[in-house]
Amino acid sequence: MSRLDSAIRRLEAQRACLDHAARLIETVPGPVVELGLGNGRSYDHLRTLLPAREIFAFDRQIDAHPDCVPDARHLVLGDFKDTLPTALRRIGAGAALVHADTGTGESQRNAKLAAWLSPRLVAITTAGGVIISDQELVGIKAAPLPLPKGVAAGRYFLYRAG
Amino acid sequence: MSRLDSAIRRLEAQRACLDHAARLIETVPGPVVELGLGNGRSYDHLRTLLPAREIFAFDRQIDAHPDCVPDARHLVLGDFKDTLPTALRRIGAGAALVHADTGTGESQRNAKLAAWLSPRLVAITTAGGVIISDQELVGIKAAPLPLPKGVAAGRYFLYRAG
Repeated sequence: MSRLDSAIRRLEAQRACLDHAARLIETVPGPVVELGLGNGRSYDHLRTLLPAREIFAFDRQIDAHPDCVPDARHLVLGDFKDTLPTALRRIGAGAALVHADTGTGESQRNAKLAAWLSPRLVAITTAGGVIISDQELVGIKAAPLPLPKGVAAGRYFLYRAG
Repeated sequence: MSRLDSAIRRLEAQRACLDHAARLIETVPGPVVELGLGNGRSYDHLRTLLPAREIFAFDRQIDAHPDCVPDARHLVLGDFKDTLPTALRRIGAGAALVHADTGTGESQRNAKLAAWLSPRLVAITTAGGVIISDQELVGIKAAPLPLPKGVAAGRYFLYRAG
């Protein structure tokens, strides 16, 4: 499998997870959190899927296409270590959906960040809300959900907050 | 269509064109030219598709994943305006396949570069060789080829050098 094949699979898996989670939260109130705005592609997909939801994006800096940058009230810039502890106050209510796309090419760094993020992602998610993560979360009170069809195990992780 | 949908379509179209072109040049001798190495994804796909071909990559600088950087003999760094006029000497023979992925977000700049590139791409392609371009080429002696199934008109352009 070439890197082009792999990129297509990764984006298709991401889209399948976002589409699936949007259906899962239909009856769950609350805003949406995009952790890692990046180039803004998945943020744009989320706002297309969920036009009636408030969506808050967290990232260290803005690298997104100008069309995909939220307004100042919905954009939280800074290191996650600084912004996540007060995130719940910022977003106003537990999130119905959290999408965390925080992985880099470095697996050790990813594991360390995932361990730090795990309880904090659960803490900002409302009961019954869904977490999508590109890293496996650890030691949390949230039930793993089956992945949508066509998404290989380990490529994404879905959880339902208790 | 979200930017995520659009990115998936673009990469799928790119892969479909590369796969199609690899079949079209089966009996055409010559190396492969990747114009715009970028992140190295399509270069990686080309070397997977065509393991027996020499592949030369041209770009201004290296932004690719370290695994996707050609060796020094097959990597030509610099502005296309400096490197393309002497490209044929560098690659040793007319190319069987040229893949030009040179577009940016700026349509005026793209059109200007495409006009400059058009005769130069044809000049480095052997008779019967195929050119894949993400920009329409203009004023050239090369026949447009039908796009592979599933690729929308205008997303890629295929030509057979005369």
